[in-house]
Amino acid sequence: MRIPPGVDVPLTPRVRRLIDTAAFRRMAQISQLGLVSLVYPAANHTRQEHSLGVFLAAIEYLDRLAFDKRFTAAVTPQDAELLLAAALLHDVGHWPFGHPIEDLHLLQFPSHEEFAHRFIVAGEVADVLADDWNLDPAEVAALVAGDAHNGARRILRSLLSGPIDVDKIDYLMRDSLHAGVPYGRHFDRRRLVGSLCLNEAGDGLAITDKGKTAAEMMVFARYVMFSEVYWHHAVRAATAMLQRAFFLLRDVLDPDDLLMMTERPMIEELLAAAAEGPAGELLDGIFGPKRRLYKRLAQYSYFEEPDVYHRLARRPYTEQVQFAERIAATLAGALGRKVAAHEVLVDAPPTELEVDFDIEVFFPKRETYRRLGDISPVVRTLAQEQFDDYVKRVRVFVHPRIVVDARQVSDVNRRLAETIAGT
Amino acid sequence: MRIPPGVDVPLTPRVRRLIDTAAFRRMAQISQLGLVSLVYPAANHTRQEHSLGVFLAAIEYLDRLAFDKRFTAAVTPQDAELLLAAALLHDVGHWPFGHPIEDLHLLQFPSHEEFAHRFIVAGEVADVLADDWNLDPAEVAALVAGDAHNGARRILRSLLSGPIDVDKIDYLMRDSLHAGVPYGRHFDRRRLVGSLCLNEAGDGLAITDKGKTAAEMMVFARYVMFSEVYWHHAVRAATAMLQRAFFLLRDVLDPDDLLMMTERPMIEELLAAAAEGPAGELLDGIFGPKRRLYKRLAQYSYFEEPDVYHRLARRPYTEQVQFAERIAATLAGALGRKVAAHEVLVDAPPTELEVDFDIEVFFPKRETYRRLGDISPVVRTLAQEQFDDYVKRVRVFVHPRIVVDARQVSDVNRRLAETIAGT
Amino acid sequence: MRIPPGVDVPLTPRVRRLIDTAAFRRMAQISQLGLVSLVYPAANHTRQEHSLGVFLAAIEYLDRLAFDKRFTAAVTPQDAELLLAAALLHDVGHWPFGHPIEDLHLLQFPSHEEFAHRFIVAGEVADVLADDWNLDPAEVAALVAGDAHNGARRILRSLLSGPIDVDKIDYLMRDSLHAGVPYGRHFDRRRLVGSLCLNEAGDGLAITDKGKTAAEMMVFARYVMFSEVYWHHAVRAATAMLQRAFFLLRDVLDPDDLLMMTERPMIEELLAAAAEGPAGELLDGIFGPKRRLYKRLAQYSYFEEPDVYHRLARRPYTEQVQFAERIAATLAGALGRKVAAHEVLVDAPPTELEVDFDIEVFFPKRETYRRLGDISPVVRTLAQEQFDDYVKRVRVFVHPRIVVDARQVSDVNRRLAETIAGT
Amino acid sequence: MRIPPGVDVPLTPRVRRLIDTAAFRRMAQISQLGLVSLVYPAANHTRQEHSLGVFLAAIEYLDRLAFDKRFTAAVTPQDAELLLAAALLHDVGHWPFGHPIEDLHLLQFPSHEEFAHRFIVAGEVADVLADDWNLDPAEVAALVAGDAHNGARRILRSLLSGPIDVDKIDYLMRDSLHAGVPYGRHFDRRRLVGSLCLNEAGDGLAITDKGKTAAEMMVFARYVMFSEVYWHHAVRAATAMLQRAFFLLRDVLDPDDLLMMTERPMIEELLAAAAEGPAGELLDGIFGPKRRLYKRLAQYSYFEEPDVYHRLARRPYTEQVQFAERIAATLAGALGRKVAAHEVLVDAPPTELEVDFDIEVFFPKRETYRRLGDISPVVRTLAQEQFDDYVKRVRVFVHPRIVVDARQVSDVNRRLAETIAGT
Repeated sequence: MRIPPGVDVPLTPRVRRLIDTAAFRRMAQISQLGLVSLVYPAANHTRQEHSLGVFLAAIEYLDRLAFDKRFTAAVTPQDAELLLAAALLHDVGHWPFGHPIEDLHLLQFPSHEEFAHRFIVAGEVADVLADDWNLDPAEVAALVAGDAHNGARRILRSLLSGPIDVDKIDYLMRDSLHAGVPYGRHFDRRRLVGSLCLNEAGDGLAITDKGKTAAEMMVFARYVMFSEVYWHHAVRAATAMLQRAFFLLRDVLDPDDLLMMTERPMIEELLAAAAEGPAGELLDGIFGPKRRLYKRLAQYSYFEEPDVYHRLARRPYTEQVQFAERIAATLAGALGRKVAAHEVLVDAPPTELEVDFDIEVFFPKRETYRRLGDISPVVRTLAQEQFDDYVKRVRVFVHPRIVVDARQVSDVNRRLAETIAGT
Repeated sequence: MRIPPGVDVPLTPRVRRLIDTAAFRRMAQISQLGLVSLVYPAANHTRQEHSLGVFLAAIEYLDRLAFDKRFTAAVTPQDAELLLAAALLHDVGHWPFGHPIEDLHLLQFPSHEEFAHRFIVAGEVADVLADDWNLDPAEVAALVAGDAHNGARRILRSLLSGPIDVDKIDYLMRDSLHAGVPYGRHFDRRRLVGSLCLNEAGDGLAITDKGKTAAEMMVFARYVMFSEVYWHHAVRAATAMLQRAFFLLRDVLDPDDLLMMTERPMIEELLAAAAEGPAGELLDGIFGPKRRLYKRLAQYSYFEEPDVYHRLARRPYTEQVQFAERIAATLAGALGRKVAAHEVLVDAPPTELEVDFDIEVFFPKRETYRRLGDISPVVRTLAQEQFDDYVKRVRVFVHPRIVVDARQVSDVNRRLAETIAGT
Repeated sequence: MRIPPGVDVPLTPRVRRLIDTAAFRRMAQISQLGLVSLVYPAANHTRQEHSLGVFLAAIEYLDRLAFDKRFTAAVTPQDAELLLAAALLHDVGHWPFGHPIEDLHLLQFPSHEEFAHRFIVAGEVADVLADDWNLDPAEVAALVAGDAHNGARRILRSLLSGPIDVDKIDYLMRDSLHAGVPYGRHFDRRRLVGSLCLNEAGDGLAITDKGKTAAEMMVFARYVMFSEVYWHHAVRAATAMLQRAFFLLRDVLDPDDLLMMTERPMIEELLAAAAEGPAGELLDGIFGPKRRLYKRLAQYSYFEEPDVYHRLARRPYTEQVQFAERIAATLAGALGRKVAAHEVLVDAPPTELEVDFDIEVFFPKRETYRRLGDISPVVRTLAQEQFDDYVKRVRVFVHPRIVVDARQVSDVNRRLAETIAGT
Repeated sequence: MRIPPGVDVPLTPRVRRLIDTAAFRRMAQISQLGLVSLVYPAANHTRQEHSLGVFLAAIEYLDRLAFDKRFTAAVTPQDAELLLAAALLHDVGHWPFGHPIEDLHLLQFPSHEEFAHRFIVAGEVADVLADDWNLDPAEVAALVAGDAHNGARRILRSLLSGPIDVDKIDYLMRDSLHAGVPYGRHFDRRRLVGSLCLNEAGDGLAITDKGKTAAEMMVFARYVMFSEVYWHHAVRAATAMLQRAFFLLRDVLDPDDLLMMTERPMIEELLAAAAEGPAGELLDGIFGPKRRLYKRLAQYSYFEEPDVYHRLARRPYTEQVQFAERIAATLAGALGRKVAAHEVLVDAPPTELEVDFDIEVFFPKRETYRRLGDISPVVRTLAQEQFDDYVKRVRVFVHPRIVVDARQVSDVNRRLAETIAGT
């Protein structure tokens, strides 16, 4: 079975049986990038395709690490099979628009890694894992969910989720390819994989010095993908619209039903639940026959407007809604007309930081390990604690029907800043 | 707005308004390749993306032909704008799974080019064309539908639909890129477009001798795409399943409703109409949670089994069903058990031939025009009347639950051949 | 060590020692395509780079064939090492402008495969092969020279030189890449290599049906490379000029000295030997400060002018010179002025045919072997005996100072044809 | 005429005449990267190919800037033609191994930009410029040499030599492509060129905010190319060897003769001048039949060993030689044997800094110009004054015959540091 960029997924019978399960095929109806296709119309690839790509990456990593004696001493062939199954199934618990919904931190909604549990430990997938793969489904689910109770598991976990894991190495490339941008491809994957080794503690992935530049390139690729794609202002406008609608509907939606759905049915369900209300207007602008995204009224960066930025970034979602409501009131006053609460949205970096991109670099000649951030100015700049602050802006979006007038409110920037400051 | 492979669609306001119409955005919910994604799981690109690509190709063709005096004498700037609008809208009448359904030639179902009429001549699209493009919507619809009542229109029509039209030059590349195969890319598009000119009669597209090799490469690319993708045996199995289900349901479906639908709703509609019957079983194997495609029992090529091939190829669909029923009866007899009619499918080249790929080649030094097929052995082999026969096989598919036994029927090939021969 | 398109040559110590020999490094001063860079100015890659690429291809082929039980039964690990060494050294006997010079069939000049012997069986290379590779240098030289005295050697030989050998799979790609053309890349090398197996007789390379399309693509890629690059008319003009100059100088050149030279020194040597005479004028037009290539006066193809074509194609070089002299006399008469013998050149397909591209295709389900030409119309058209006739034209070139007048000779085509026919 | 990556150079008659001059064709015998091919064996592309690429880039830049009203108000069509001619000829004064030789700052050797003068203002090139291009050859030479006596010339100069000039945009891509590395390609050239505009002062190139990410990518691409290719340690070893040999021979070489030579003759001339002496040994290790590069004994970076670094970086070449001699003496003492002066080389960043990569970014909505370094953390890190310090290390190389012993000198690092510190 072939997937871009021209690679063949080796379909042994047990792989075939796993990817033919309903749980796996469900991912064929969930797009990888969700609302990004409103801005990059070709970005319609699915979690199914990505999962196959992650499986291939896992094979590639294991092929390389098979030459590493410390790795083979710690990780048994059975462990390696566990990783392969987890690679195929790592996103099986994802529901449509997963990240925007998770970022709301609604109590009744689980994380997608935990949610994977329900697809893995019972039913068809569990049967295939037990019968054909000779694996304990609970172990696969635990690895996917992040459990790492011993050294080998910690190594596997770092392959599955870490600075240079099999997930990122696939999605940066795949998202770029389908979207039609060069940003996340071309980071010399071959060189990077060829340099994989274990870290000094022996419980996680590291690279040798041969892979240093390739790792810097991957850090940079990720930075550009966030700047130009994942946190593109129009993508964020749509995201903020969906989040507010979902927030408004949170008590009428049934998580158990909803999160099992594929993309189109979930959209239908949301539209039905929202009906004519504010949530309906928000959803119609994204999913209705006419594209009608909210527009930027203001934008704040960590560097240029640190005060406003810190006031809004990393707050619980309910606070962001309150800020938006206060801004709506300010605009209503200035414009001398009603501004509905849902006509103003605040979008800001969520409470969780992206994964730290720093890893250890092994210098065989000197037999020392150094942190990548200590030896690379690019990584120090981009990949450490400030990454989120660089690429994730705070933005105020308003409904297109008020944006022209709102922009002409005299001294609008000062008024917004004061409103946000609460003075 | 960026689409693969890294090109920017120039979004002037009038283009923006056209692509923001509901009719255009509907194409974002219809995949370009339909059932192909069952075999090439990454091939999920949409008719919307393709339409943007065709628009870009039309700009590229016009930019080149602006240097051709015969072209600019015949085609006015207004004509060129008509072409651009038609390029954007050429697929607006497509419904999901368009080609398989059209190939059934059901009386109550129109062609998608005619169907485009209803999206273009009235409503939002018509308003944008009239107000922003200063074009007569009826003219755009006529060009899309194939009407070419004078010389300029014939030229435009040959750009829109012909051996090297803006449609093919986009879809060969785009289908390859998203599917992850090299076959339809890399035919030196730059060289081909750089060689465009008018034919000897002055009423259609031709190429100069500089583009001869690029044209041969495009013919070959198309051949490989048909062999490996469009007529891949498993794609055809799924296609045959959908066609039979649609045929069975033909009297309970309402074309007016159905053809306006996007992909997911149409699938839901078909599943609902089919319920538990034979059509339901066929559709469930394609669209249900478990992939369960029919299997090849026999395959006949033009070259190796010409008798059987000609008996089945290019027949009306109803005859194909009758052949399948006779084969089902034969198998039932041989197996000593019931074989339902819908458990056997015959798939064969449809009645229409693919467009002839032959075009004129202009030799400026000698000031002569020659037919490409006369000067290129590859084109003579591949692009003329026999193209369909090379890449489109006749196949007999059976339900997976009988395939093992059916293959073990003694002398099964002879029995099938006799059944088909009617002896 | 990295070479395009982004692959790393694994430099084990024994490989390092082999490629650091003077014999191997000599190839760094010999360009792969010689005179092609007069037309494709970026095509300056060397035989050294190509040899590294062939070595990589040999590793790739062996990695695949290691899964084939018939192969591993016939070919020992020691045989495989022999192949790797021969892959690295297969062009070590090449001198600059090898093919044009070989095509003259001058008695005192050997073939480059035989000439390789002198670089391999004694001296530094021989020492490395014996000491580090544990191989008999004479065996390596024999394999390079084409000797295949038993089954295993015949298999190795078919990997090294045959329809889909490690040489072609590299040079088609590499020549395309550096020249800047898409033609010889993109034939799905991964798929082709993934389908390698042994032929029915067990003494040569074949492919399984999975590789059929990739093999067709490679045949087509080769056809396009010959049409557009290797037999480009201006490349052939330069080639004909060099051949005539070399022919004129044949008795004053010392093969023993000359063929050991790298490219620049050989050019200097030729220029020095030619001095002011006719050979000097020919060489100056190619290698002098001013580019001054001969121009086409006439061109004959197998299909359109079969009589003239067959009169000139595949003749010994001395006959071609006689034809050219007769044409010079005809032109002198028609123009009423002196036309020197060396002002007219005849270029025609050489006596040897290109290697037949036909191979066996294995169908595992049916356990049968078929010839590719029997099941592929493209291959039947392009890859069999007529390949040379399609892409290699017969051409008459004349010095630029007479071409304008010569083209205006009344009835020039008829006069040329009569001169060639000898009537 | 086609060059990689698949683009056609438009050969109008006047371009054809310019590139057929002996001065232009001389560049076909001078490689772009000189000694880099010792490490990246495929990097054999020539200054001729690069010059054609720069010409194409200049056309692309002008096509874009033709839409910029401030540009067209300042730059006349005649100015634009001047730029095109200068683009073709910008490297015409380059001699082989230009940069290493220039970095020695020998009094009798000019800069290559000044040297271009002699190829442009008289003779064949001057005739073509005057007759076919209607340009004053002196003006072309002045523009190439960096003269910018008014606003329009300053603009042209910034297109020809500046942070995002037509030279860099070509060589980063071309060097990557031929070397076989991804590093300098893929920086979204289309987006970058599409964002070109004038700076606030109106006398130089800038970009709009749409090109910000593409500019960051280009800065990063340049950083990686320096790290991995141009300042690769083995490339620098060969460079240091050549520089020392040239320095030793400086009084016996005739600049007037030498700098007119192409690459192979210059190498022959250097080898002849050096004969058996120290320079001869150095040159033989680079250009002789056996590759024998000096080895790293020590390496100092700006960040980890700032004291030693600053002691050696940016010193006149004569001082570097003195440091090397002192190190040779130290090693001789420690090893108890003679160490010749030329057996130790110090390689350090030259006195000139690379061009500053910072440019202005125009924000149309706010109508403001900002410096790229002020709004991009990556550029602040990489593209400003410290760029050289990041990628250019100070290194001590020694002859391979002493490296093993030298590395085992007890406390060798401390002794070297003390020697360099002069204590």
